[in-house]
Amino acid sequence: MKNFNNIKVLAFDVFGTIVDWHSSIVKELNNMRLSVDANQFALDWRAGYRPVMDKVISGEGHWSSIDDIHRLILDDLLIKYNIFYLSEEQKIHLNLVWHRLNPWNDTVEGLNKLKDKFIICTLSNGNIRLLVDMAKFSNLPWDYIFSAENFHAYKPSPKTYLGVAELLNVYPNQVLMVAAHHSDLVGARSCGLMTAYIERPLEFGISVQKDVSPRTDNDFHALDLLDLFDKLRN
Amino acid sequence: MKNFNNIKVLAFDVFGTIVDWHSSIVKELNNMRLSVDANQFALDWRAGYRPVMDKVISGEGHWSSIDDIHRLILDDLLIKYNIFYLSEEQKIHLNLVWHRLNPWNDTVEGLNKLKDKFIICTLSNGNIRLLVDMAKFSNLPWDYIFSAENFHAYKPSPKTYLGVAELLNVYPNQVLMVAAHHSDLVGARSCGLMTAYIERPLEFGISVQKDVSPRTDNDFHALDLLDLFDKLRN
Repeated sequence: MKNFNNIKVLAFDVFGTIVDWHSSIVKELNNMRLSVDANQFALDWRAGYRPVMDKVISGEGHWSSIDDIHRLILDDLLIKYNIFYLSEEQKIHLNLVWHRLNPWNDTVEGLNKLKDKFIICTLSNGNIRLLVDMAKFSNLPWDYIFSAENFHAYKPSPKTYLGVAELLNVYPNQVLMVAAHHSDLVGARSCGLMTAYIERPLEFGISVQKDVSPRTDNDFHALDLLDLFDKLRN
Repeated sequence: MKNFNNIKVLAFDVFGTIVDWHSSIVKELNNMRLSVDANQFALDWRAGYRPVMDKVISGEGHWSSIDDIHRLILDDLLIKYNIFYLSEEQKIHLNLVWHRLNPWNDTVEGLNKLKDKFIICTLSNGNIRLLVDMAKFSNLPWDYIFSAENFHAYKPSPKTYLGVAELLNVYPNQVLMVAAHHSDLVGARSCGLMTAYIERPLEFGISVQKDVSPRTDNDFHALDLLDLFDKLRN
């Protein structure tokens, strides 16, 4: 039997759930006046990271931080898009756009409300420095920042979900994983965590239709973090 | 040659440097109306942790969290002080006083000022949950919380000091270790970190005279965090 009153910790996915990576990257590319389809470039950059990570998870590739993975993908994309005029300094700056992603409109207010009732933390495949910079950049009031780097394992490895419970000294079912991706929630649920889906229909921009319909396996389904706050209060 | 402008990260010792453990524990013991010399009980509780930790560091003892170490010492002290009337629930509550320690008067304002210019983090032998609870309890605005638990090593193990630099992706000399204990700063310095001593003359209450005189090995010597802020600005 599920006991919602038991929840002590809210663990948040970050890219897509907390911050709007797509529009942030499009904006950065446009500001740099790169002659590319910024929408497609952003989608390609994001899509490139899963295959690299899957290699790490399968044991084929060795551990790398997201910063390094983003850079590998960026270097490939710059060739693919015929961009040969960026200096090394510009490439470093562009790669760090992932540290400067903007939150969704409801994020900061929602997190501050939720922080009064729960321990709020990240559980992200982003590296620690990236998540620290992002929190400073966007005033994200985390109680704790969990990164794949803490566990040397990427989501959906059970090490990550169970690691949150262990290091915060709670049972897995006292942790609510909050994410805009069902795959993340499936991983969390298989470790005994509670799950909340956040819709974020514009995660991939307007050119990609995201299926945000509710799935009954999740304990909560919310439009955004303010809606989640209301649902957790009831 | 030292370059103070290079400092990116301020890593703070917590017990004594950020929070006033002695008066917080004395107050708790008095509130519980325990018939003990609260000053001496607090000093004994704190003094008991170093020998246990030294055993872990020497490899004689296995890894334990500070919560568990505090409880072991508490159980011994309750016998020593002839306190046999506490329930298990009361003992758990009392042990968690280390999660509810009050900051020094300058701490919160000082940290908020320093946070505008630097990444501010803990580097404490306290466990993660303890440090998270304490930050919520006292509104400590950490950018990141590093605990011995992250490294499975206690200060002054080099793993802890170098771990901060590695996980925040900076060079050791870009980290300023801030502590009210010279031994901590000696450990940090041997790993190439910069060091700042904070006086905290009342750390052990009024019955213990603490030598807070400056030592030339430290890069900074400050009365409190506001004084440190002024010195880092110059």
